[in-house]
Amino acid sequence: MKQSVCSLLLYFFIAIPSFSQEIHWESVAPGVWRGTTGTPEAYDLWSAAEPSPKMASLEKLGEAEFPLSKGEIISRHLDGNTYLRFPLKRGEQLFGFGLNFKTIHQRGRILRLHVDHYGGEDNGRTHAPVPFYVSDQGYGIFINSARYLDVYAGSASRLNSKDPAEARDRNTDPNWTASPYSDGVEILVPADGVTFYVFAGPSALEAIQRFNLLNGGGPIPPRWGLGFTQRVHRLYDQEEVIREVDEFEKKGFPLDFVGLEPGWQSKSYPNTFAWDPVRFPDPELLAKTLKDKGVSINLWMNPYVSPQAEFYDTLKPYYGSHTVWAGAVPDLSMEKAEEIYWGNFKRDHVEIGVGGYKIDEVDGYDRWLWPDVATFPSGLAAEQMRQTYGLLVQKQSTELFREQNRRTWGLVRASNGGGVSFPYVLYNDYYNHRDFITALINSGYSGVLWTPEARASDTAEEWLRRFQTVVFSPMAMINAWASGTKPWTYPEVEEEVKAMALLRMQMIPYWYSSFAQYHFEGIPPFRGVNLEPGFKEMESSDILEGPTDLESNPYEEALRNEMKDQYMAGPSLLVAPFFAGERSRKVILPHGNWYDFYEGTFAGNGEIIEVQARMDRIPVFVKEGSIIPLMEPRLHAPEKGEVVDLEIRHYGKEPARYRYYDDDGYSFDFEKGAYTWRELKVEKDGQGKWKGFLSPPVEGKPNTIGEVRWKFMTSGD
Amino acid sequence: MKQSVCSLLLYFFIAIPSFSQEIHWESVAPGVWRGTTGTPEAYDLWSAAEPSPKMASLEKLGEAEFPLSKGEIISRHLDGNTYLRFPLKRGEQLFGFGLNFKTIHQRGRILRLHVDHYGGEDNGRTHAPVPFYVSDQGYGIFINSARYLDVYAGSASRLNSKDPAEARDRNTDPNWTASPYSDGVEILVPADGVTFYVFAGPSALEAIQRFNLLNGGGPIPPRWGLGFTQRVHRLYDQEEVIREVDEFEKKGFPLDFVGLEPGWQSKSYPNTFAWDPVRFPDPELLAKTLKDKGVSINLWMNPYVSPQAEFYDTLKPYYGSHTVWAGAVPDLSMEKAEEIYWGNFKRDHVEIGVGGYKIDEVDGYDRWLWPDVATFPSGLAAEQMRQTYGLLVQKQSTELFREQNRRTWGLVRASNGGGVSFPYVLYNDYYNHRDFITALINSGYSGVLWTPEARASDTAEEWLRRFQTVVFSPMAMINAWASGTKPWTYPEVEEEVKAMALLRMQMIPYWYSSFAQYHFEGIPPFRGVNLEPGFKEMESSDILEGPTDLESNPYEEALRNEMKDQYMAGPSLLVAPFFAGERSRKVILPHGNWYDFYEGTFAGNGEIIEVQARMDRIPVFVKEGSIIPLMEPRLHAPEKGEVVDLEIRHYGKEPARYRYYDDDGYSFDFEKGAYTWRELKVEKDGQGKWKGFLSPPVEGKPNTIGEVRWKFMTSGD
Repeated sequence: MKQSVCSLLLYFFIAIPSFSQEIHWESVAPGVWRGTTGTPEAYDLWSAAEPSPKMASLEKLGEAEFPLSKGEIISRHLDGNTYLRFPLKRGEQLFGFGLNFKTIHQRGRILRLHVDHYGGEDNGRTHAPVPFYVSDQGYGIFINSARYLDVYAGSASRLNSKDPAEARDRNTDPNWTASPYSDGVEILVPADGVTFYVFAGPSALEAIQRFNLLNGGGPIPPRWGLGFTQRVHRLYDQEEVIREVDEFEKKGFPLDFVGLEPGWQSKSYPNTFAWDPVRFPDPELLAKTLKDKGVSINLWMNPYVSPQAEFYDTLKPYYGSHTVWAGAVPDLSMEKAEEIYWGNFKRDHVEIGVGGYKIDEVDGYDRWLWPDVATFPSGLAAEQMRQTYGLLVQKQSTELFREQNRRTWGLVRASNGGGVSFPYVLYNDYYNHRDFITALINSGYSGVLWTPEARASDTAEEWLRRFQTVVFSPMAMINAWASGTKPWTYPEVEEEVKAMALLRMQMIPYWYSSFAQYHFEGIPPFRGVNLEPGFKEMESSDILEGPTDLESNPYEEALRNEMKDQYMAGPSLLVAPFFAGERSRKVILPHGNWYDFYEGTFAGNGEIIEVQARMDRIPVFVKEGSIIPLMEPRLHAPEKGEVVDLEIRHYGKEPARYRYYDDDGYSFDFEKGAYTWRELKVEKDGQGKWKGFLSPPVEGKPNTIGEVRWKFMTSGD
Repeated sequence: MKQSVCSLLLYFFIAIPSFSQEIHWESVAPGVWRGTTGTPEAYDLWSAAEPSPKMASLEKLGEAEFPLSKGEIISRHLDGNTYLRFPLKRGEQLFGFGLNFKTIHQRGRILRLHVDHYGGEDNGRTHAPVPFYVSDQGYGIFINSARYLDVYAGSASRLNSKDPAEARDRNTDPNWTASPYSDGVEILVPADGVTFYVFAGPSALEAIQRFNLLNGGGPIPPRWGLGFTQRVHRLYDQEEVIREVDEFEKKGFPLDFVGLEPGWQSKSYPNTFAWDPVRFPDPELLAKTLKDKGVSINLWMNPYVSPQAEFYDTLKPYYGSHTVWAGAVPDLSMEKAEEIYWGNFKRDHVEIGVGGYKIDEVDGYDRWLWPDVATFPSGLAAEQMRQTYGLLVQKQSTELFREQNRRTWGLVRASNGGGVSFPYVLYNDYYNHRDFITALINSGYSGVLWTPEARASDTAEEWLRRFQTVVFSPMAMINAWASGTKPWTYPEVEEEVKAMALLRMQMIPYWYSSFAQYHFEGIPPFRGVNLEPGFKEMESSDILEGPTDLESNPYEEALRNEMKDQYMAGPSLLVAPFFAGERSRKVILPHGNWYDFYEGTFAGNGEIIEVQARMDRIPVFVKEGSIIPLMEPRLHAPEKGEVVDLEIRHYGKEPARYRYYDDDGYSFDFEKGAYTWRELKVEKDGQGKWKGFLSPPVEGKPNTIGEVRWKFMTSGD
C-alpha cells in the first residue's frame, strides 16, 4: 500500500506527459487578477525585485471587467513543465516580451525569454526579457517566473482548435501563407507551477499602466539625472577627469554627471571595487571638487569579485560554483552576502558622494557569465539567478542611496519583470542606431528604460543623428570609455550638437513631469505611437507585401511594416528621428492635429507625411492642445529645491491643461508626500486671445517654479 | 511513516538542488565504453535511429586504454537535470557538436544542441546538432539523449577547480583575457539520467571511426547516387521534366537523378503525397521513360499531411496536437502510424521506380514546426520528437527501398546522433558558399553528410566556384526549384562547368571506395585536414591576434585562425576551393609531400603555399604515394553490375597501395557479403620503372572492373 501511493506519486511527477491543471483566480487590485496553477516555485521575479504595488494609483485607474474568457485560459502539466495558453482573436496584435531591438509586433514570434546580451536577433535573449505582453485589444499578461520561458506568441496552430488554420495548396493557391493562423499564445514554464497576472485595459496603454503600477510604478530620477552625462576614457586619472569637466564648462556644453570606467578601480575584470591609489589618490577630493562644479560621479562596475578585493575572504561562503573573468560571483539572493558585499560600496563610494553606478555584464554574453550548470549556496538554480541578478543589483544598490535619502540614476545591463521602479536605464554593446530606437519604443511596453547612447561614429552626420536621439531618451549620454569621443569631436556639427544638448536641459521640467507620470500613473515616458488614441484608424495602411523571390524568401512571408522609427516622448511629443544618410523620411501622424515642435505650425492629422532632413533638427511633433514647460538653457540641472523660471509653450488651436510635477528633485521625501501637481491651463479670454494660468503653490509643499512666461506657439503670443 | 517515505521521495525529486550521482561503466566494444548515470529516459537518439553497431569493424580497430581519468568524469543531479563534466587539458582542442557552419574549433563555445534551421550563428541550433565531440588528444564523447542539451565546451571556469582561471587586472595587464581558462566540458541534460559513450583513439580520427562504427558505419550510396543531380523548377510538369533530361543528354552534361519539387503533388504544404493528375498524369510512364534514359527520380516532400491526403482519416489517432502549415504531424515513433503513413509512398512512388526522397522541413525553422508545447499520442515530448524526427523519417523511408533490395540516396534537412548509416545527405536554405565548405568539414566530425548545393548565383564566376565544390562533395547537385538555373545557364563558364561535371563522373570509382571506407572502417569521406597525421606539427602557426579596437571587440578577444576553407575528400585528396572574387589563396599542406591533382607536380610539404586562381580548376592536392582510380567521362553512372574500364593514377615518389571496393553498386547484397576489396599496388620494377598491380577478382564476388590503364602522374608513365 505504501508502495502504491509512492508509485502513484512518482507516476504523477514523472510518467504522465500531460494533464490539465486548475487555475486558481484572485483579484489583487482593480483590473488586475492573479492566476495560480500547480505549485509555483518559491523564488520568482518578485522575490528578487520585491516591488511595492502602487495600490492608490491602481484604485484611481478603477475597476474593469476581466478582459478575456477565463475558460479559454488553459493550464496543463506537460513533460515536467507547466503549460499555459491564452486566447487570441483574428487581427489581434501583441507588443512587449521585453527589450526587443528589431521588432515591434510580437504576434507570430517564438521566443525563449532569457536574460542575455542582445545577439542581433529578437529571439527572447535580451537584456530585459520581461515576460509581459500587451494586446491591442486592451489587456496584458505577466508571467511571474524566474525561469527561461518558451513563448509561442500566436505562432503555433493546434489541430483541434475551434478556429483552426486552413490547409491551402502552395502549388496553386495565391492565398497560401507560410504563417498559418494561430489562435493562442502558448508558454512553457519549466516548473511545477506558476503565478501569472491579467491586466485589464480597456486600452493597451491602461493595461501597461496597471502592469507598471503593480510593479511599483516608474522611478523619478533626481533632476540631475535628466541632465547630460559623459563617460570618460577607461584609464583617465583624477586630474584628467577634472580637466574634462572643466572643458565642458569652458566650451559651454552641459554636464551633470560623469561616468568613470574600469580604470577607477585598483583592479578590474575581476574587481576590487577599491579606488586605484595611483590614478585616483583622493577620491573624496575628486567628488567634492566635481560637486562644486555641479557634477556628480557615476562608477562603472560589474559584480564579480577579485581575489584581491578587501572582502573577498569574508564573502567566501556565499560564492557560486563558477567564476566570471576569474572573479567570484556573490550569491546576492542571500541577505548575509548582500550585507557584506555592499558594505565597501557604501563606505568608499556612496558616503563620499558618488551619485550612481553603471552595473555592467549582469546580462551575460555567451561565456561571460556563470553557466547554467553553476550552483549557488542559496540553492537557487543558475537559471533563476541569471534571470534575476540584474534585479538584485538594482534593488540592493538603490538601497545604498535611499539610506542617504538621495536619489540615484544609473545604468544597468540587465533587468526583468518586477524591476519597473528601479532608477536604472538599460544600455548595451550593440550599436545599430535604428535598432536602438526600436528598443526605445519597446522599452515602453515592458516597464524598462533604455538609452540609445552615443559612442563612436563614422561621420559627423552619424554623430549628430545619434546625439539628437539620445537627447530624446531617458539618459542623454555619451559613452567615450573606448573612443574618447567628446560632444565637440566633430567640429562640423559642434554647434548643432550644443544646441541639442541645451534643448535637453531646457526640457528638464517636461521630462521630470513625464517621469512623475510614470511613477504615479504608470505611463511610460518613452513608448510606441500605437498607444496613442488616434492611432487605431491608421493601421490598415500598415501592411506591405513581402518580396516574392523564393531564393531570398523561400516561404514567401508577407512582411509587415512595423512602426519602428518614431515614438512618443512624454505626454505630448512624437519624435521621428533621422538616421545618417537620410535626406527625407515618412512620419505617421495619428488622428488629431499635430504641430511642429520648433515652429508651432500645423503638420498633419491622421496621415503619413514626408519630412525633409535638416542637420539642426530632429523632427518632433506636438499633439493638439498640449502644454510643454521649458526652462532656460543651462549647463547643470537645478539643484535640490532650486527655483527656476519657466517658459510654458502651448501648441494647437484647442485649450489645454497640464499637470506640472514638483518636488525637491533630489531626495526620497516625495515618497512621503513632499510633492505637488501644479495645474497649467491655457484658454481663450473674452477677446479670443490665449491666456495661461498656473495654479498657486500648495502650502507646505515644495515649489521650485519662479517666473513664468507663456508662449503660444501655433497662433502667436 | 508512509508520509515520510513519500516526502523523502519528493524531496529527492524536487527539493535538492544538486547531489553527486554514480556513473556505471560498461565496455561495449573494443575502445568504446558506456557510462550510465541516474535513470536514463526510455527514449533516446538510438531509440529513434536503431543503429546496428559494426562490431567486426570495431574489433579490427582493436582494444585501447580508457582515454581519460574516470575519476575526472563527474555526474550530478542538478535542479531536476543531469549534469555531466568531462576534463580538458591545457592546449587541448575540440571538434564536432554537429553541423556547425562558421566554426571548427569548439573549445570555449556555448551551445544548446537543438535541431533547427541554421540561423547564421553556431549556437547549437542546426540541422544536425549531434551530441558528439572529438578531442585532438585522441578521444571522443557521445551523449545519447533526445533532449536539448546545454553544452559549455570548456567555456565555464569553476571557482574550486584544481587548475583554476587566473585573475588578472584588465586595466594594466596585457595578458588579461576575456576567455579565462576552463578545465572541463560541462553538459546539462534535462532528464533524471542519461547514457553516454567514450571512444578511444589514439588519434582523433580513430575516435571518430569508433563513433561512426558504433552507429552502424556510413552508408554506401548506389553508384548512381554519386553521379550528377538536377532539381527542376517546382511547377514543372511531366513533359517539361523529360524535356530537361533530354537537354542534359543533348548538351553532354551528366545526369543520374532528377529531383521533383512540390509541384509533383496534387497539393503541397501540407501534402497529399499523391501525384498531381494534371501535371503528372502518368508517373509510371515518366519513371520508365527516365529509367530508359539512365535517370531516376527523387521526390521532394515534407512529412505534414493534408486533410486531402488519402490516408488522412486513417492516420487520425496518430497525429500530434499541433499542425505544420496546417498539415497534421504523424507520430512516426509509433509502429502503427509508420505502417499507415508509408503505405502510399511504397505503392505510389517506390514500387513504380522512384529512387529516393528529399525530406524537407523536419528541422524546424522558427514557427515552421510543431512547438515545444505540442503533445504526441506516444507520450513523447515535443522536444524529443524534434530531436529525432529526422532520424525517424530517414530510417523508415530507407526501409521502403530495402524491401525492394535497391539502395536509395536522398536529401534530408535534419539528422542527429545515431543516424550515421542512413543514405541521406543534409542540405538547407542558408546559402553562404564559405560557410557551406565549413559545414562540409564539420560533417566529418559528426557522422553526417552535407552537400554545398548550387542554387542561383550572382555571377558566372560564383556559379563556377560553387559548382566546383559541389563536385567534391557527397552529392553533386543543382537545386533549381526556385531559380530554374541549369549547369549551362552561364555561357561564359559552360565549358568549365561541363568539365567539372565530367570529372565528377570520372571519379565515381574513387568516391565509391571512399564511401565503402566510411561504411566498413568509419572514415568520413569528407573531413577536416587536421585529422591527417601530418597536420599536428602545423598548428603553432595557426593563431592570429584579434583586433584591439574596443569599440568593435569590447572584450579584446583573440581571434583564432581556424582551417575552415580546405578539406580532405576520400583517403588521398586535399581540396582547397576558390570563392568568387578571389585571385589567389593560401593552402595549408600538412607534413608529407603533396602533389597537384591535375599535373602530378610537387606542391609542398608541411607548409603554407599560395595558389593562383584559375577558372577551370579547383585546387586539389594528392598525398604522397596515393592511388586514384578513375573511369572514362560519361553521362550516367554505371548501372547495376556494369563493367567499366579504369584509369588508375599514381601520385608521388613512393610506392602505393589502395583497396578498391566493388559490389553491384545497386542492391543491399553487399550487406550479405556480396562485395570485394581489390588490391591496387604501385611499385618500382627492377629497372626503377613504376609498375601497377591489380589483385585478381574473387570467385563468386561481384567484379565490375574492365580494362585497366595505369598513369604515373608525378614521374611520367
